[in-house]
Amino acid sequence: MPDTHSPLDSCIAEVWELLERIGQETTDSPGITRAAWSRNDETAADHVRAFARRHGLQALNDAFGNIQVLLPGVDPATPCVTTGSHLDSVPHGGNYDGLAGVAAGLAVLAAAKADPAQHARPFRVVAMRGEESPWFGTAYLGSRLMLGLSTLDEIGDLVSSASGKSLRHHIRDLGYPRAGEAAAPLLDAGLVTSFLELHIEQGPLLEADGIPIGIATAVRGNVRFPDARCLGAYGHSAALPRRFRQDAVLAVAELALRLDGFWKDRIAQGDEDFVFTVGKFSTDAVHHAMTKVAGEVKFSLNIGAAVKASQDAARTLLLDLVKEIETDRGVTFELGREVGTPPTPMDGRLIGLIEEAARPLGIATRRMPTVGHDAAMFARAGIPCAVILIRNANGSHNSEEALDRKDFADGVHVLARAMHRLS
Amino acid sequence: MPDTHSPLDSCIAEVWELLERIGQETTDSPGITRAAWSRNDETAADHVRAFARRHGLQALNDAFGNIQVLLPGVDPATPCVTTGSHLDSVPHGGNYDGLAGVAAGLAVLAAAKADPAQHARPFRVVAMRGEESPWFGTAYLGSRLMLGLSTLDEIGDLVSSASGKSLRHHIRDLGYPRAGEAAAPLLDAGLVTSFLELHIEQGPLLEADGIPIGIATAVRGNVRFPDARCLGAYGHSAALPRRFRQDAVLAVAELALRLDGFWKDRIAQGDEDFVFTVGKFSTDAVHHAMTKVAGEVKFSLNIGAAVKASQDAARTLLLDLVKEIETDRGVTFELGREVGTPPTPMDGRLIGLIEEAARPLGIATRRMPTVGHDAAMFARAGIPCAVILIRNANGSHNSEEALDRKDFADGVHVLARAMHRLS
Repeated sequence: MPDTHSPLDSCIAEVWELLERIGQETTDSPGITRAAWSRNDETAADHVRAFARRHGLQALNDAFGNIQVLLPGVDPATPCVTTGSHLDSVPHGGNYDGLAGVAAGLAVLAAAKADPAQHARPFRVVAMRGEESPWFGTAYLGSRLMLGLSTLDEIGDLVSSASGKSLRHHIRDLGYPRAGEAAAPLLDAGLVTSFLELHIEQGPLLEADGIPIGIATAVRGNVRFPDARCLGAYGHSAALPRRFRQDAVLAVAELALRLDGFWKDRIAQGDEDFVFTVGKFSTDAVHHAMTKVAGEVKFSLNIGAAVKASQDAARTLLLDLVKEIETDRGVTFELGREVGTPPTPMDGRLIGLIEEAARPLGIATRRMPTVGHDAAMFARAGIPCAVILIRNANGSHNSEEALDRKDFADGVHVLARAMHRLS
Repeated sequence: MPDTHSPLDSCIAEVWELLERIGQETTDSPGITRAAWSRNDETAADHVRAFARRHGLQALNDAFGNIQVLLPGVDPATPCVTTGSHLDSVPHGGNYDGLAGVAAGLAVLAAAKADPAQHARPFRVVAMRGEESPWFGTAYLGSRLMLGLSTLDEIGDLVSSASGKSLRHHIRDLGYPRAGEAAAPLLDAGLVTSFLELHIEQGPLLEADGIPIGIATAVRGNVRFPDARCLGAYGHSAALPRRFRQDAVLAVAELALRLDGFWKDRIAQGDEDFVFTVGKFSTDAVHHAMTKVAGEVKFSLNIGAAVKASQDAARTLLLDLVKEIETDRGVTFELGREVGTPPTPMDGRLIGLIEEAARPLGIATRRMPTVGHDAAMFARAGIPCAVILIRNANGSHNSEEALDRKDFADGVHVLARAMHRLS
């Protein structure tokens, strides 16, 4: 177990209070709301910068409002081991999804600064904006800008669902880039030797299995159809015999259940990497009726996989099922626009190194795939990445997130050891 | 084939024009709308009474606006072979569902009146109100009042979806009961020796099989859950493993598909009497998302059967499936209020008599179950009933109803022969 009287533990206690304070100031009952590039998001950023100042750390804003925190005397253009996560939350979300990773990095750097032997370490914490997709309809905006994967010319016209105003407007409204101060550099692959993100687990696996720490093997990719439709034909619910029906409800129900069957088979074969969800499924409120066969269903499809071959197999199955059900049930599927990303494998060497960091601390870990995180953007930029997942009751993206302080402390100890080993 | 120069054919030509004229005057593009006890419904009633007057027939209003038409000299309290159907339509429906049966009866009586040997026949045509359920949320209001199965005290407070006003208000607003005129009597079982309803087929079977006339074996009963819900738990679409999911979409999809499988099996066993529809199926628009497991689905269930044993078996299966899926998928079903009616068998002697009436005319018939008609209320009142179904393209309850004039004429000839045989 970590020594509870180490300088790192004092810093962990301090960032835990920081977390709680930011949570209180951004409460939006139930839960908390920190919309991307909003006043609440900026409140969190202000606390991060104030913490850095109190501890004698450098805090530099980039042109988009992302923050880079460095040990004093470290040139911002130095290649660094980098950690961090995002400041924003989903609407009425919890306090820890994102913010816990920023706080963890601050604790590691503050502890290093306090130790005369460590204080020039090439460590960097990033506090990023706009990771959550509800605000501008797409994820990772802050990390994409920070890493130069997207430019403001390309994505500045995206409009916030919260304000109706553009991303460009929001960044300027918060005063970025700040006149009279040096902007933090773009973090191209040359400036980040590796990226370690600490993040709460977003599912119940660690909690269920009694393991405090997960290590991501990959960020799941996905194949998504946000606006799929199935068109059949409305008909009399009693007078229309089965063979004449073009029932959109039964067609989409069959598609969903057969993909669920595929999932069940994969699990039976030991593959835990596949997931599948029909989150939206609605007949047309204007035309549907208890006494009518449904002529139309709107639905969403979200297939995830940690391995590209598995994702491709599921996509092929989906298209085969669509054809088969169209023929069997006399309906037409319009899957609509397809979005998604390929799976992103995490760095094998980093995974091993994190396991080695946890072992002497007596902290159990397990490897598992994870969902989308900013780390996926670092990986896309060619940077070796890892995600340290912390056990968390009640999942994430809801107001009931419940991170245990002890689990958080364990995670920060593992992160710190891994970062020191890497630097 | 019927003699195209008979007096009945002249009357058929005249009621066909009557049908067309009423359709034109109650057009509500697309299709026609005759809300129950509305001005459009009354327009149809006025045309019926005017037709009766032109042909020297008696037309009596009952206290609720239903019309009884009798040959001259027939006492309204005489037991009569009775035919007829309803005047109202669904919103933007077709012109023939209901009205064709009224027109058919008028043709039979007008032809009988024109024949000195027939004009005292105990024949009655009824033109009823409020058969369709969209207007007051429940069906057969006119026939229930006319037959004394319901009283205005019991159902007068039902409110129209079209006007927001009560049934009692609507009846009074149209001037019923009419001061200074004799009201038609309640049609208890003693006054109706048998009831024969001519109605367009509401499905495609006759059209598909090239048969002009169907004879109903039974009015299908139904087990209905208009406001069923399935409650699961919202969760992260990627981070929540399958075994932790409480997915309301998959639960309702499975319920629907397994009932569909039961239906398929029944058809394979030669049972065409069962039908089943989930016409409404919707996740919650406030809480659902492509990236969330669905925690709630609202849906409707409508099971129909022409035989009580089949209906009971389906209901039992439904309740068994609900329990099984609740256990398997960690969800809770709330089926909500249950409505429905038992199947109503039609009179075997009348079915045979209609077949015998059609045979010498060279008109092919087939026996088949049918959906709810006013005839079901006559059967409930203890009156022997039959329904003559006329081939109709495009089903009913939509603006595309397409009755062929020749098929209608064939149906009226069969009806006339059967009524003469019975009187």
